[in-house]
Amino acid sequence: MPDAPRRSKGLDGVFVGQSRISWVGGESGDLVYRGFDVRTLVPGVPYESVVHLLLHGEPPSADPSPEAVAALAKARPIPEPVLRAADAIPPGLPPLEALRTMLSLLGDGTAGYPPRLEDGYRLIARTPILLARYVRRSAGKPPVDPLAELSHAANYLWMLRGERPAPRVVAALEGYLDLLADHGMNASTFALRIVISTESDLYSAATAALGALKGPVHGGAPSRVADMLDAIGTPDRAEAWIDERLARGEVLYGFGHRAYKTDDPRGLLLHEIARTVADPVRLQLAEAVEAVALARLRAAHPGARLFTNVEFYSALVLEAIGLPRELFTPTFAVARTVGWTAHAIEQAGDNRLIRPDVEYVGAPKGRAWPRPLAGRP
Amino acid sequence: MPDAPRRSKGLDGVFVGQSRISWVGGESGDLVYRGFDVRTLVPGVPYESVVHLLLHGEPPSADPSPEAVAALAKARPIPEPVLRAADAIPPGLPPLEALRTMLSLLGDGTAGYPPRLEDGYRLIARTPILLARYVRRSAGKPPVDPLAELSHAANYLWMLRGERPAPRVVAALEGYLDLLADHGMNASTFALRIVISTESDLYSAATAALGALKGPVHGGAPSRVADMLDAIGTPDRAEAWIDERLARGEVLYGFGHRAYKTDDPRGLLLHEIARTVADPVRLQLAEAVEAVALARLRAAHPGARLFTNVEFYSALVLEAIGLPRELFTPTFAVARTVGWTAHAIEQAGDNRLIRPDVEYVGAPKGRAWPRPLAGRP
Repeated sequence: MPDAPRRSKGLDGVFVGQSRISWVGGESGDLVYRGFDVRTLVPGVPYESVVHLLLHGEPPSADPSPEAVAALAKARPIPEPVLRAADAIPPGLPPLEALRTMLSLLGDGTAGYPPRLEDGYRLIARTPILLARYVRRSAGKPPVDPLAELSHAANYLWMLRGERPAPRVVAALEGYLDLLADHGMNASTFALRIVISTESDLYSAATAALGALKGPVHGGAPSRVADMLDAIGTPDRAEAWIDERLARGEVLYGFGHRAYKTDDPRGLLLHEIARTVADPVRLQLAEAVEAVALARLRAAHPGARLFTNVEFYSALVLEAIGLPRELFTPTFAVARTVGWTAHAIEQAGDNRLIRPDVEYVGAPKGRAWPRPLAGRP
Repeated sequence: MPDAPRRSKGLDGVFVGQSRISWVGGESGDLVYRGFDVRTLVPGVPYESVVHLLLHGEPPSADPSPEAVAALAKARPIPEPVLRAADAIPPGLPPLEALRTMLSLLGDGTAGYPPRLEDGYRLIARTPILLARYVRRSAGKPPVDPLAELSHAANYLWMLRGERPAPRVVAALEGYLDLLADHGMNASTFALRIVISTESDLYSAATAALGALKGPVHGGAPSRVADMLDAIGTPDRAEAWIDERLARGEVLYGFGHRAYKTDDPRGLLLHEIARTVADPVRLQLAEAVEAVALARLRAAHPGARLFTNVEFYSALVLEAIGLPRELFTPTFAVARTVGWTAHAIEQAGDNRLIRPDVEYVGAPKGRAWPRPLAGRP
């Protein structure tokens, strides 16, 4: 492990501590949850069992985890005052803006420090409920309550639509949720850990994390991938479109990642999942765009080790599931609530205020205010 | 400047970049805004002029800054849908919890990246309005609109009380707001800069910052200082109370700071301000407690260079102004909105995603799920 630079404005290569939750192998293309390679979990492990694994460190005694199923069911009922306040958020906002406010509303002064598992189960259980309720209200539709017999993934689609989702679609969403459940020390998790490090509460921290997830450099990109595919339209137009965009110096969303210097294992698995649910024409378009983009980006940046990132096939899977683009990043948040909870609890377990230094390069000390001040001789 | 450790879970001594906004001289006991020592600004420089200085880098052409006064006045009217949503937040929450939700409500999808000065002026202008409105509603009182002829500091007290505040009290609050307006790379500012680094918006970032400010290790301590003074009651009881508390291994709020290895200049100035507004009996109690606490803490931690921090005399000033304890940290936030804005704009001006690394020390890769998975051979 190389010495960290003493100055690093992106904190590249600076280790901010230790974690037992997940390992991102950027060189080898690995993602491991508590010792389990995600390739051995997806497809097939229910999201509730991934929740159990990430929060408790060990796999459950059965699938789906009976403990997580029970804890999520218990955590689902949302206090009436929170629902009333959530229902007063103006309709028609981007759902991610509304979700940030709703996560904040979950903090009513009763969640303290250190964060408890119970707070986390509430966060995980209530995020999709509030999100679906908001989306339906914005569309002029009444809320749909979760059903006890449905899984977390199936309930999310049920609450959005009021129709029972097809098993193939639920399986695709479950794979997505499993794969996006945690990812080492990414920007939203880091923001969350900083908030916890001041001995603040889980809802403050998750609200902060959501704000970071919103940025297109972090979790806000998949909808832009879908927009790009729309703009390109057909495989034969990929080269011209991409060349033009790169010539203008613009970013191609869906490629490159701070951590991975090889294929993102989530992207490869999401590509597999996309094959089970996506429209074949759309999938062919995506594969053509991916091939051209990688060729062009690698030619433009030799040695940069550019690969497709998780956003690219996330977009394919989420649109194949039938989610509108404005729900792509909120759905990422639905998945990540478990990772946020695990990191918040871990941070509190061995806490130290995260407070770096900054080099002051502004005007030198010694300037004098240009006018006399009131109340001074 | 020493090399940063390659691992630092609190990021102590790791430089996350450069800033031109404020300099915290931890060894010398300095705080400098854009080249101006805060001792030369307080008392006397209006908060609006500090806003101007921090946002624009130069002092205004007159005091209070005509540009900041005009920009804040323009930014004050809050859209009706935001007010309606804010008015649906359950009454009676700790105001800081409500304020986090209200800052989030300011983000309606129209504020993008990079953050604009206009977004910042809205944040600065609307924070005290929404906060005062919430506090009054919780107390069953109608809102009080800001008055154009009052300063930012005077308006805050006016909107809380519906009475014109005494000039001496306004001056004390103004000194407090000036001194708390910015402070280098503290935890809330760092959380804000991480959110901006993902190309998210100012309201997401300020909401994140508020969540970090809430923690007692950052901005949540002054009310605990006031609680401690109440618990001690009279100067003669200070020794016994403090010894007992330290014997139980508990923290004394109001002492020690990550950055300062000498007196915090803000604490010294707030002590001066407290002399102008605090009840003399209360002030004597505080001074006696401070002396005993420092003596005991220094004896217990020889060589640790422990000093009174900004929270201690913040508590004295804020209670002397007549603010209830639950408004101490929200009032800190009212002051800090300008620093947050300045840092958000600076971060976006030379941005790089802030994403550190973490050392995985969990279970080794290679664990096998204990059961066969659905849909797998």
